[in-house]
Amino acid sequence: MTNALRTLSAKAAADLDRELMSSGAFSLDQLMELAGLSVSQAVYRVHPPSSKPKVLIACGPGNNGGDGLVAARHLYHYKYQPSIYYPKQPKNELYERLVVQLKDLGIPFVTDFHAALKDAHQVVDAIFGFSFTGEVREPFPSVISALAATSLPVLSVDAPSSWDIESGPPSSGPGKDFHPTALISLTAPKPLVKHFKGRHFVGGRFLTKKMADKYGIDVPEYEGVDQVKELGQGWLRAWMRGADEEGN
Amino acid sequence: MTNALRTLSAKAAADLDRELMSSGAFSLDQLMELAGLSVSQAVYRVHPPSSKPKVLIACGPGNNGGDGLVAARHLYHYKYQPSIYYPKQPKNELYERLVVQLKDLGIPFVTDFHAALKDAHQVVDAIFGFSFTGEVREPFPSVISALAATSLPVLSVDAPSSWDIESGPPSSGPGKDFHPTALISLTAPKPLVKHFKGRHFVGGRFLTKKMADKYGIDVPEYEGVDQVKELGQGWLRAWMRGADEEGN
Repeated sequence: MTNALRTLSAKAAADLDRELMSSGAFSLDQLMELAGLSVSQAVYRVHPPSSKPKVLIACGPGNNGGDGLVAARHLYHYKYQPSIYYPKQPKNELYERLVVQLKDLGIPFVTDFHAALKDAHQVVDAIFGFSFTGEVREPFPSVISALAATSLPVLSVDAPSSWDIESGPPSSGPGKDFHPTALISLTAPKPLVKHFKGRHFVGGRFLTKKMADKYGIDVPEYEGVDQVKELGQGWLRAWMRGADEEGN
Repeated sequence: MTNALRTLSAKAAADLDRELMSSGAFSLDQLMELAGLSVSQAVYRVHPPSSKPKVLIACGPGNNGGDGLVAARHLYHYKYQPSIYYPKQPKNELYERLVVQLKDLGIPFVTDFHAALKDAHQVVDAIFGFSFTGEVREPFPSVISALAATSLPVLSVDAPSSWDIESGPPSSGPGKDFHPTALISLTAPKPLVKHFKGRHFVGGRFLTKKMADKYGIDVPEYEGVDQVKELGQGWLRAWMRGADEEGN
């Protein structure tokens, strides 16, 4: 499976993040800046600001939400008109600073997701990432239902929110029919991608070959100074063939 | 002078940095990551890795050197072969982490600048930035003399090292005849740019309009997702004309 990118389980993704921030000597500030930058570049690839300037960014309470906050700042500088839905803002020094940076740009924080959705051209789903398990808690069930129902383009960060990281779309609940139009996998695709049919990007251009080998993943072939790489349609077929050959 | 970018004095640049990190709520990690990313994109614009892969990055003891360390990591991921000359490594948690990140990529740290220069295709001068004043201290005089004498392309970060931030090239000393081929001004050009004749970029795509207005500078017209903007030949003439009109 030499031309197949390999995937990273939820546990391995958490281990890799911990290793990047311990022996890898990255700070969370730095990693989140690079992750959010990748997200913003994926948004730009799919719908540049000339076509869909109004981006509604739904941010969850953890690091996935933080990536969304960083992406929003970059999108503003690319001349989008971002707005943020961030209903659960934990007491966290980094997230609080990212919020100040957005407020200094005059970026609105909305409280009614459904009203904001009516005014948006596209959505970034930065609600839950690779550490999501179990139930979708309030106020997110109705948000995820709305994302499942909307005809707007949705780009999910690392995982379509409410999907199981290993097994993909839930068999019941608000995310049952949620199939976003695009996905950006951070550092490496998670196993859920085999259920994903939209445009698929990988971001996070800081992974060393040594770390990639240790975790059984690949460093994508980024081009130029790009911080994202789109995986072509052939990738998933190659990946599934590779998985089959290994008896998975 | 509506089409002239305005400049930032050394004192104003220091004040702006402090304000970004206090009320602006940016961390130094974040700002340095974005500055170094800009530097790496300027290097790519001038000489892509296919033409001049071996980049020698000379890093000074302060934040200018830190920007160089970040740039080196990005350049590695763009498929350059960076090497680092970093003779004065202060005890500083952020710089130490940036060094670990480079060593994890196998990027060599060289101790003999002159030998390393013979093997390089191009150089990044990240020795001194906007806080430089006075004398060039050891071991940098001979390094700056070598940069003045080399026929290799040199890109300076924020200032040609040893230049006075306000008045430009020194009238004596190792930097007397140092005219790098390219310059990247971070956040805004410094007054020394009126003495600079090479390719000129601006980077640091995080400045708010409010801050730019407060400091009497302009937000460059970046394109797409670019983190750098090249200022055309017309810019300096327009800037000097504007300065003349204001009686400067």
